[in-house]
Amino acid sequence: MHKNRGIAIVATSVVAALSASVVADDDTDRALLERAQQLFKPLPADAGTPEYPVTSERVVLGKALFFEPRVSSDGVISCAKCHQPTLYGTDALPTSIGNHGKVIPRNAPTVFNTALQFVQHYGGNRKNVEEQAVKALISPLAYGNADYAAAEARLRAITGYRPMFEKAFPGEAEPMTAENWGKAIGAYERVLLTPAAFDRYLQGDTRALSAQARQGLDKFISFGCVGCHNGVTVGGQMYQKFGITQEYWLATGSKEVELFKGRDKGRFQDTKDEADAFIFKVQQLRNVAVTPPYFHDGSVADLRDAVRIMAKLQLGRDLGADDVADIVAFLESLTGEVPEQFASAPNLPAAPYHAQP
Amino acid sequence: MHKNRGIAIVATSVVAALSASVVADDDTDRALLERAQQLFKPLPADAGTPEYPVTSERVVLGKALFFEPRVSSDGVISCAKCHQPTLYGTDALPTSIGNHGKVIPRNAPTVFNTALQFVQHYGGNRKNVEEQAVKALISPLAYGNADYAAAEARLRAITGYRPMFEKAFPGEAEPMTAENWGKAIGAYERVLLTPAAFDRYLQGDTRALSAQARQGLDKFISFGCVGCHNGVTVGGQMYQKFGITQEYWLATGSKEVELFKGRDKGRFQDTKDEADAFIFKVQQLRNVAVTPPYFHDGSVADLRDAVRIMAKLQLGRDLGADDVADIVAFLESLTGEVPEQFASAPNLPAAPYHAQP
Repeated sequence: MHKNRGIAIVATSVVAALSASVVADDDTDRALLERAQQLFKPLPADAGTPEYPVTSERVVLGKALFFEPRVSSDGVISCAKCHQPTLYGTDALPTSIGNHGKVIPRNAPTVFNTALQFVQHYGGNRKNVEEQAVKALISPLAYGNADYAAAEARLRAITGYRPMFEKAFPGEAEPMTAENWGKAIGAYERVLLTPAAFDRYLQGDTRALSAQARQGLDKFISFGCVGCHNGVTVGGQMYQKFGITQEYWLATGSKEVELFKGRDKGRFQDTKDEADAFIFKVQQLRNVAVTPPYFHDGSVADLRDAVRIMAKLQLGRDLGADDVADIVAFLESLTGEVPEQFASAPNLPAAPYHAQP
Repeated sequence: MHKNRGIAIVATSVVAALSASVVADDDTDRALLERAQQLFKPLPADAGTPEYPVTSERVVLGKALFFEPRVSSDGVISCAKCHQPTLYGTDALPTSIGNHGKVIPRNAPTVFNTALQFVQHYGGNRKNVEEQAVKALISPLAYGNADYAAAEARLRAITGYRPMFEKAFPGEAEPMTAENWGKAIGAYERVLLTPAAFDRYLQGDTRALSAQARQGLDKFISFGCVGCHNGVTVGGQMYQKFGITQEYWLATGSKEVELFKGRDKGRFQDTKDEADAFIFKVQQLRNVAVTPPYFHDGSVADLRDAVRIMAKLQLGRDLGADDVADIVAFLESLTGEVPEQFASAPNLPAAPYHAQP
């Protein structure tokens, strides 16, 4: 009996100790989740707004237009040229190739979840995805149309689009306009969201992240990365100076840019205000693990290097290899599925009986 | 009674006349079908051969490689750049844009059903789709690799492909080779077939074609188009001189080609044999109605013009507007569905931890 009782006591103590440990772990997990829930938000079902509604007619049309090259002056440029279905909405290049092979000085970010950012483009010179899509039509680097009338003429020459525009924008005398091009493509982009393990985590499932990913999240928060990379898109919600502790190119190896006659100074390139020098929109980090290379000029190929560089440049912190591995594990939890709306190719209307204008 | 009998006799006569007419129509239809069945063949399930088998592992790998730009020297060229899912396997350009924006002097034909042609390329300098895919790797106009070793180095740097190659080519010490690149892409292309209304017709369903399309088929045969455009791909099975009654450029408006220092002389550009001057592979016509513009240099945008020009240039026949409309109706019956294997985008392996070689 003594012996048995002894075993029973030991057993009880072990159970109690285990329970205490589980409770302690649970408490830690719960505390981390609660901190995370204050800093981030799970993705909504779509990014539609009353002003920019996501209707099925606009999404169907916008999807076709997203892939349409015949509205560009070289017949090659489409949204999908730089935001490819096979490469997580990127082109996997350091910097992109524009109209007639022109050099685009910046890296094509993924199109996924971008509609949820506070502004568009690295310098924030587009207020939303609709404006981005419209202005691309007359950008010499992008669609290369002389003006909106030229773009609309190219669009209207593909007569198969007319019934689609009429359905998407009912009651308009001439729905095939540059403005509606933007609204349709915008509606499509507003459904290109990629829920990930991190969203399930934020909704309360602490086991949706591995222990290492949770460790990485903890470091991401406590090291201060979260000061800029926060919100629903884990970034993309504010401007920030790139290169606090030293000039960014000393860390990234970035080259001077011919178009800018020197360093890329971010927002300054548009505003010409010295206060905006080296100010960039903070990049969103959703799908970052599958969308190399990194930074505004794709100057860094390895995600671990990118994490190390950011900690040093922005926070003055030297990360150890374990820190980097943990944070990368967290970042990998931001990888979602390619949306079905993006993975399936639309059939574009053939324009067999009309040459391009 | 007389009256009724009269009605009955009239009614019987009408029925008899109608029956005779139906029988006559049926006979005509049957005769046309039988002629067509001697000249054409419906598509097989796939274009695999014992030497080039279509295995699911090769098709899955080949599909990814078809869309893969990171094996090219500019990081842009892939098979899919000129053979796009959204444009019926074409780029909808008169002539295509190659590596680093180089001018490709010829029109990108659809990739659909091409594996069934007797040779590949306009000049027939590729014996099959496998050889085409392999040699593209070192073409300065295409993937732009210095040699096969350079191409293989770029391929092997995307480590996510290794298990796919191992599955597709089991037992090989190093399966990630240029040759297997060709075999995998070839296997994929061998399933990109597009059964159409015309196939159902050839299988005996005379009503699969409209009356006008059957009229067009009848003219296509009796005018002699079928002398070159025959077989399973309605063309693509022989060489022929382009421009019998006059030089082709007088009809098509084709320009001189810088790369060729003059006119495109077809097969001659490869063989340098004057006997091959202006000899081209006869183009297959499957999906011709949805793959403008036309001819080896995309010099003609309108299918009706293309039909008219071919009749005059090759057969010395001036077609009337009705003839053209009928033949176009027949050609439209060659339009198939975009294969599911082509319409859905593969996810390419991210190469987040390795820069391109």
